[in-house]
Amino acid sequence: MPTFLGQNQYGKAENRVVKITRDGATHHIKDLNVSVSLSGDMDEVHYSGSNANVLPTDTTKNTVYAFAKEYGIESAEQFGIHLARHFVTSQEPIHRARIRIEEYAWERIETSRADAKETGSDEPRHSFVRQGQETRLTQISYDGESWEVVSGLKDLVVMNSTDSEFWGYVKDKYTTLPEAHDRILATQVSARWRFNWTDDGRETPDWEESYEQTRKHLLQAFAETYSLSLQQTLFQMGSRIIDHRGEIDEVRFSLPNKHHFLVDLGPFGLKNDNEVYFAADRPYGLIEGTVLRDGCEARIPVDLSNL
Amino acid sequence: MPTFLGQNQYGKAENRVVKITRDGATHHIKDLNVSVSLSGDMDEVHYSGSNANVLPTDTTKNTVYAFAKEYGIESAEQFGIHLARHFVTSQEPIHRARIRIEEYAWERIETSRADAKETGSDEPRHSFVRQGQETRLTQISYDGESWEVVSGLKDLVVMNSTDSEFWGYVKDKYTTLPEAHDRILATQVSARWRFNWTDDGRETPDWEESYEQTRKHLLQAFAETYSLSLQQTLFQMGSRIIDHRGEIDEVRFSLPNKHHFLVDLGPFGLKNDNEVYFAADRPYGLIEGTVLRDGCEARIPVDLSNL
Amino acid sequence: MPTFLGQNQYGKAENRVVKITRDGATHHIKDLNVSVSLSGDMDEVHYSGSNANVLPTDTTKNTVYAFAKEYGIESAEQFGIHLARHFVTSQEPIHRARIRIEEYAWERIETSRADAKETGSDEPRHSFVRQGQETRLTQISYDGESWEVVSGLKDLVVMNSTDSEFWGYVKDKYTTLPEAHDRILATQVSARWRFNWTDDGRETPDWEESYEQTRKHLLQAFAETYSLSLQQTLFQMGSRIIDHRGEIDEVRFSLPNKHHFLVDLGPFGLKNDNEVYFAADRPYGLIEGTVLRDGCEARIPVDLSNL
Amino acid sequence: MPTFLGQNQYGKAENRVVKITRDGATHHIKDLNVSVSLSGDMDEVHYSGSNANVLPTDTTKNTVYAFAKEYGIESAEQFGIHLARHFVTSQEPIHRARIRIEEYAWERIETSRADAKETGSDEPRHSFVRQGQETRLTQISYDGESWEVVSGLKDLVVMNSTDSEFWGYVKDKYTTLPEAHDRILATQVSARWRFNWTDDGRETPDWEESYEQTRKHLLQAFAETYSLSLQQTLFQMGSRIIDHRGEIDEVRFSLPNKHHFLVDLGPFGLKNDNEVYFAADRPYGLIEGTVLRDGCEARIPVDLSNL
Repeated sequence: MPTFLGQNQYGKAENRVVKITRDGATHHIKDLNVSVSLSGDMDEVHYSGSNANVLPTDTTKNTVYAFAKEYGIESAEQFGIHLARHFVTSQEPIHRARIRIEEYAWERIETSRADAKETGSDEPRHSFVRQGQETRLTQISYDGESWEVVSGLKDLVVMNSTDSEFWGYVKDKYTTLPEAHDRILATQVSARWRFNWTDDGRETPDWEESYEQTRKHLLQAFAETYSLSLQQTLFQMGSRIIDHRGEIDEVRFSLPNKHHFLVDLGPFGLKNDNEVYFAADRPYGLIEGTVLRDGCEARIPVDLSNL
Repeated sequence: MPTFLGQNQYGKAENRVVKITRDGATHHIKDLNVSVSLSGDMDEVHYSGSNANVLPTDTTKNTVYAFAKEYGIESAEQFGIHLARHFVTSQEPIHRARIRIEEYAWERIETSRADAKETGSDEPRHSFVRQGQETRLTQISYDGESWEVVSGLKDLVVMNSTDSEFWGYVKDKYTTLPEAHDRILATQVSARWRFNWTDDGRETPDWEESYEQTRKHLLQAFAETYSLSLQQTLFQMGSRIIDHRGEIDEVRFSLPNKHHFLVDLGPFGLKNDNEVYFAADRPYGLIEGTVLRDGCEARIPVDLSNL
Repeated sequence: MPTFLGQNQYGKAENRVVKITRDGATHHIKDLNVSVSLSGDMDEVHYSGSNANVLPTDTTKNTVYAFAKEYGIESAEQFGIHLARHFVTSQEPIHRARIRIEEYAWERIETSRADAKETGSDEPRHSFVRQGQETRLTQISYDGESWEVVSGLKDLVVMNSTDSEFWGYVKDKYTTLPEAHDRILATQVSARWRFNWTDDGRETPDWEESYEQTRKHLLQAFAETYSLSLQQTLFQMGSRIIDHRGEIDEVRFSLPNKHHFLVDLGPFGLKNDNEVYFAADRPYGLIEGTVLRDGCEARIPVDLSNL
Repeated sequence: MPTFLGQNQYGKAENRVVKITRDGATHHIKDLNVSVSLSGDMDEVHYSGSNANVLPTDTTKNTVYAFAKEYGIESAEQFGIHLARHFVTSQEPIHRARIRIEEYAWERIETSRADAKETGSDEPRHSFVRQGQETRLTQISYDGESWEVVSGLKDLVVMNSTDSEFWGYVKDKYTTLPEAHDRILATQVSARWRFNWTDDGRETPDWEESYEQTRKHLLQAFAETYSLSLQQTLFQMGSRIIDHRGEIDEVRFSLPNKHHFLVDLGPFGLKNDNEVYFAADRPYGLIEGTVLRDGCEARIPVDLSNL
């Protein structure tokens, strides 16, 4: 045979599981999109179609729902760890599991009683509205020995309406861009951060607290950096996270520069004093980079974007 | 000629305008997507291609940006009124203008100084993060004499994790659905409400306050209705708005019933006590209806959805 | 009660049904997305939540699948007629049914045997590849007495690389657009056409043949019109259809003008002789209009676009 | 500084360029979406915001449009090679360029004259309709010494309505799936193939011919494989390509298993003899794998999907 099989993986993608936990009249919600990917001794199914080593993707789906009941969903990370461990340890042909999870945030709807300050301990609290635009992410990888946990977020759209410049760049024969000394800086953050927790012997981080704090530092670094380039802002966001969160060793960003062009109102006899902007769709700058803790090696793949 | 021209309209759609207003170190932002649609004496351009009566769509785009400077953007509604009046009164062949606007909400990023309670009046406040998933909408129509303002929202995703039932329905030979006495009720609200303000002689409503309050009543009615059907919830949401907001005479909803199916964990020896749900994509129930103030006539078109 | 219920409708949207018909080794495929919408005596379910008149949306879904077996799917239109008739005639509280269907086209994959001209009558023919970008549409409405059938298509993207001009338009103080005497004209056609078949006493059109021919005339009118404005092209497309297809009385179009801007290569010492274009996303012109057969009234709603 | 910079890259993404070539009355079209990504000596812009080594992303956009005029667009691959070479050789700080291109296919509209067999050599041929759903892809990487060209496609949707089985798989306590001996097999192919052309000294492949043939072999292998698992089909598609195309050493696939579930019509007294299917959205199986020519090493990254 003049060809052979390289890396391969399979599983059920996008299992949408919603878990409701009732604490009296107060309900809690976890809303996840779970994708399972398994690899191991899978040559035969590719070469001959024999499924003797194949746990069906349908079974991996069932497992997601069963585990939501058996273990609950304390955090996306903890839930992914349960799943990955199960597949690798319960099926001999499966050597590696990768669980990717998207989590959607909800906040409570304030009822009219709450509005009127009439709430008591018996106030029903089972109504929610989807919050924010961003999606929380995690990826759990396990090979039977060590763990890799990479969490993050996507579609977090942020803007500074000033404190951004861009000048002093290379000019070649195709350069027409005028320098800017006060511009809007806006981006749709896609970020991944890798935890240094890798083995079962160590206590796991508090995944929920870690996410809240990391997101906060990312936003604050964006807001507080006087920016001479989006690359500089990227590095500040990554450094701020690593400085404050000892559990994280590496951060990777993919930052589209969502251009807001100052509209030329001169033809209409008007002056545009950094007031009226055209928000452009395409093309956009795309700035990607990794920030690492001193002494650490990069492990997050470089391409978060397909463009 | 065996054919003739019926209703027609034209303009520039999806003009993305961002307006920054600086109040010292505090910036304010309005982020709109403005679509212009004009109609009038336009037979000739259809029959012969003569553009003698056609104001270019490019000009309508320029007008959007110029007006953002000339009039500012106090609210989407007020901005749309300026635009509609301009097109109808300044161009003889144009008899009717319809301005549709989407508005995207932003909230401020709390800086680390705010975090540390160190803020003062000089605190820079020019950093924003996109808020929520829903889009605020308005449509302004003007024919030179009277106004119609229909505002609303789309993509407001809400869920009640209990207090919803569905039973007592018609059963025919194709009915297999079991009755439900405790289910999740979730929907992605698309709503439009029509104001009774129609002429320049009356004072306009406070558009910003009206939107905030209408959205609040809609959410509270959703949360506080013990639901026997999504139709009942729809009517409660509409009635609550009309009861509380004297400026609104009509509300139209398009409510996809975002099904959350209880997963059968029986095959795995587990009991699912309203805990683990599968969030389905398609198909979905689609419930649409209008609620009116007594004595008023419906004017909002019935089809908000194309499906 | 100070509020009352206006127009309302409900049903199951987006039932994805694929029907395979086996003719020996040759398979045929129909791939539909069916949305059911019913209305009638539905006040009570809105006012009190009583479902006594409500056929569940789940049942309407089951009916779609059962009818695919019972009646087959000869055409989307014929299938919709079966469904609409069933709901109105079998359920007393239901007075009106509207069935909307999207149809996705597939073409056969030519096998290597076909490639090598070795095909015989026993050649297996059960492999397909999705064809084109456009979606075929139909909407069947029935009130127990008469029928309305509106078919059409969306997302048919077309371009003329020349034979388009735009000049001689109105110029006001906000006009900056230069006149164009040779430009690209491109649009993403959304069209609906209404059949004059309305009652069971008359023979129905050949729906499949009608669609193929109508699409062909639409494309040819686009290609063969020397265009002075997109409105002119719109009218030519509608007229051509009505001239050739006696079964159609009305055509409605929504045509985004997908701008292709000539790139200014002057700064790089290059001349752009109608060669290099930037394909823009937003904003875009949006041209909408109805073409009617002499003596006919318009019935297709004017807003195919929400923007 | 306790942090440092890892891999980074930047450029302008999604430059939409349309190139028209006029050959008398016959026009030809190339419709591309070009994304530029550059890397090199870029530490300073991240650490201090100095742009002294930064060629603006706006300049990379200008270069795309200028090169469309200067070099024409013979193929996406050839165009990407021109661009990558330019950035690496003309800017000292830039050590590596990666150009990603999406290409959209158009076919000619047959005019009514062609229809009537009246065409002559003077027939105008400048009208096009977008073809197919799939997008052709290429990625050109250059480090100043050697080239890597990875082409491919995405969103090619295919279906076999029979000749697919799935049985003999592992069963654990979470397995409920019944074995299938005749099922629909459908997928939305995402594929990338790597060329063994790497240095300027060798003649480049005929990129257009290579794409047409590779796509054909992929489709035929899909159609002609009696499938016991989607993994088996994946391997057959990859092998068929490598067997027939000497210029390709490696193929990577990401194949969502687009489930078509046989609908249970039993409750309605009907038998479903592999006729009526429900086309499901989520979840879906996701099968990914690499096929290599004997003796070759894998270089295409494993994750084409983010799920």
